[in-house]
Amino acid sequence: MATVKLWSDAEVQADPRVKAVFDDIRAARRSDFVNNFWRGLANQPAVLERTWASLKAVMAADGALDPLTKELIYIAVSTANGCSYCIHSHTAAARAKGLSDAQHGELLAIIGMASETNALVTAMQVPVDPEFLA
Amino acid sequence: MATVKLWSDAEVQADPRVKAVFDDIRAARRSDFVNNFWRGLANQPAVLERTWASLKAVMAADGALDPLTKELIYIAVSTANGCSYCIHSHTAAARAKGLSDAQHGELLAIIGMASETNALVTAMQVPVDPEFLA
Amino acid sequence: MATVKLWSDAEVQADPRVKAVFDDIRAARRSDFVNNFWRGLANQPAVLERTWASLKAVMAADGALDPLTKELIYIAVSTANGCSYCIHSHTAAARAKGLSDAQHGELLAIIGMASETNALVTAMQVPVDPEFLA
Amino acid sequence: MATVKLWSDAEVQADPRVKAVFDDIRAARRSDFVNNFWRGLANQPAVLERTWASLKAVMAADGALDPLTKELIYIAVSTANGCSYCIHSHTAAARAKGLSDAQHGELLAIIGMASETNALVTAMQVPVDPEFLA
Amino acid sequence: MATVKLWSDAEVQADPRVKAVFDDIRAARRSDFVNNFWRGLANQPAVLERTWASLKAVMAADGALDPLTKELIYIAVSTANGCSYCIHSHTAAARAKGLSDAQHGELLAIIGMASETNALVTAMQVPVDPEFLA
Amino acid sequence: MATVKLWSDAEVQADPRVKAVFDDIRAARRSDFVNNFWRGLANQPAVLERTWASLKAVMAADGALDPLTKELIYIAVSTANGCSYCIHSHTAAARAKGLSDAQHGELLAIIGMASETNALVTAMQVPVDPEFLA
Repeated sequence: MATVKLWSDAEVQADPRVKAVFDDIRAARRSDFVNNFWRGLANQPAVLERTWASLKAVMAADGALDPLTKELIYIAVSTANGCSYCIHSHTAAARAKGLSDAQHGELLAIIGMASETNALVTAMQVPVDPEFLA
Repeated sequence: MATVKLWSDAEVQADPRVKAVFDDIRAARRSDFVNNFWRGLANQPAVLERTWASLKAVMAADGALDPLTKELIYIAVSTANGCSYCIHSHTAAARAKGLSDAQHGELLAIIGMASETNALVTAMQVPVDPEFLA
Repeated sequence: MATVKLWSDAEVQADPRVKAVFDDIRAARRSDFVNNFWRGLANQPAVLERTWASLKAVMAADGALDPLTKELIYIAVSTANGCSYCIHSHTAAARAKGLSDAQHGELLAIIGMASETNALVTAMQVPVDPEFLA
Repeated sequence: MATVKLWSDAEVQADPRVKAVFDDIRAARRSDFVNNFWRGLANQPAVLERTWASLKAVMAADGALDPLTKELIYIAVSTANGCSYCIHSHTAAARAKGLSDAQHGELLAIIGMASETNALVTAMQVPVDPEFLA
Repeated sequence: MATVKLWSDAEVQADPRVKAVFDDIRAARRSDFVNNFWRGLANQPAVLERTWASLKAVMAADGALDPLTKELIYIAVSTANGCSYCIHSHTAAARAKGLSDAQHGELLAIIGMASETNALVTAMQVPVDPEFLA
Repeated sequence: MATVKLWSDAEVQADPRVKAVFDDIRAARRSDFVNNFWRGLANQPAVLERTWASLKAVMAADGALDPLTKELIYIAVSTANGCSYCIHSHTAAARAKGLSDAQHGELLAIIGMASETNALVTAMQVPVDPEFLA
């Protein structure tokens, strides 16, 4: 159970500021479905507006990285941070953007490998090579 | 300072098992430079062999994900895990594989954004939408 | 399911050492309710005694920080550590100590913001300004 | 060493978009000092603008939480995330906002205590009490 | 729910490469039970093979550390990383290898204590004593 | 640089409460060397007393786990938490208690392996097998 209220569509409709963000989410995603994350953020309209504006800017399609690559990075961070909800929602988003089973398998292998070498480096307290600082 | 000995080239040359791995690293990377991570792992030849074999397999060029995308994922995990050495070494590796400033900027923005929404989701304890479990 | 037994009230009553701690928890909180954390710690009476004594000392009302502020800090740490149980229990404790929706909203926004800037700083490996070390 | 360029004042002056943010930071803080975090973010003007706008909104003085409490929460998150730079910069900010040694001592004790009970809860996998979900 | 398919025994039997690993797991553990982790990894046969080969090598009985000690270390890491599944599976493995309640209690106390002092050290940014670098 | 004052021996001598703890640390360890962690905690005598009392109790020699095993667990947690100081100090402590290079190598391999499988499990969101909950 959430520690905050998750807003129903009726509650969203009754608050013009929240409604505007939800309308924009629905338009941007071309889908009526708005997931629970936004229904929780609705309790704080200013944070809701700022978070959605930032997410739109960061994940926008026309950047230097393509939309699927962006989702892979999002899943990697969410996994390292142990955010179950985020792993589920961004894996779903990645699949919607074309993630294949082979790509997913490689993503998982890299996440596992990086986690292992991160830990080995930390346990050995390896000093940074001067070559990496040039 | 490291908690283990970092093997010099002379020490590497004197141990056939370690030398074989270092030779393969140099061949695969077409460079004489072998970074400190491997010099620390050299204390445990079996772990050295296994880690290098895994890294070669996971980061190999001919997968479903391209080499630069793999490095971006590696940097994302290393950042979330707070591994300074790994961030330096894999940012250097990514630049060697063509990472542009614009791509790096977007990578950083996604890592920051994901970390923020991971934390918001966790603090609100948002339940996973049934739509994500289908 | 827990990895340890959660002690029932009957089991607590049968062990004088555990009973003494539970009696003190009930007296300090002016409530008969003792949550599962303590029922798990009951398996290790020495750890139970030490943890309760420390918690009483650290969270005591008459310190330099007020009780609600202390709970906000506890929630912030628990969120960053991804402890779902702790987020639930300390958000409940904070609400019992007067946390308003507006305060909760700001707490969440700060936790999210700090997580984002923490990640940006780490990814950029920003060196500490000499001004902060004075 | 940073993985990105840290912009000098001369470089900032030469870029109107970055200069505008730096001018606003200096005005808001009534100080000429702009710390390295912003000099690293300057490489990505859009992220710089968004991050500063968010930070101003989140940490603004006239919220439901007072400015010092906000810094305590920021330090708590930064510590749990292991961000050395952030701990230094926000401890400095908290001192500038009046943090006493006694308050700092209590903050540290709570961060330590929360980290300990977070770990104990996680290791025992304690189920959330129904009372916390009401 | 998992983000990948968990392979049934029938599916495992139909894939010779996956079947070979599952057969070896069953032989090594002298048990017909193969847990969900391997059923998820089965989607990526190469990762499945590599992970099982590494786990066998790392957790093998005839090392410098005894099998129970190895499981204690595994539980400690899994707790610090907040991996609920891993805490459950390795606590079960440790019990199967003779973990007593007293040993489990001490393990938990050390994990808690380490987490507390880790956080205190980080918040205070304590510099490493030269004596530890000798 | 630390965010708190590190007490010199002269300052310790001048404060009876802090002096008592330092005397006990020196007696328990049969060494005049007191490391920086305690010199930082000295700013908060109550936390200093409590932390030392807890550490003595938890790490005491006559438990169900032997002193070296306890240090291995401490290093494992400190590595997963990324506490550089703690890794250095507890690796030094483990060596003083007889840690061999072979044991250290195995410890590192387990920490790496656990970190990898923790991440794989989390990315796949593997559900706990009912067998582990019995």
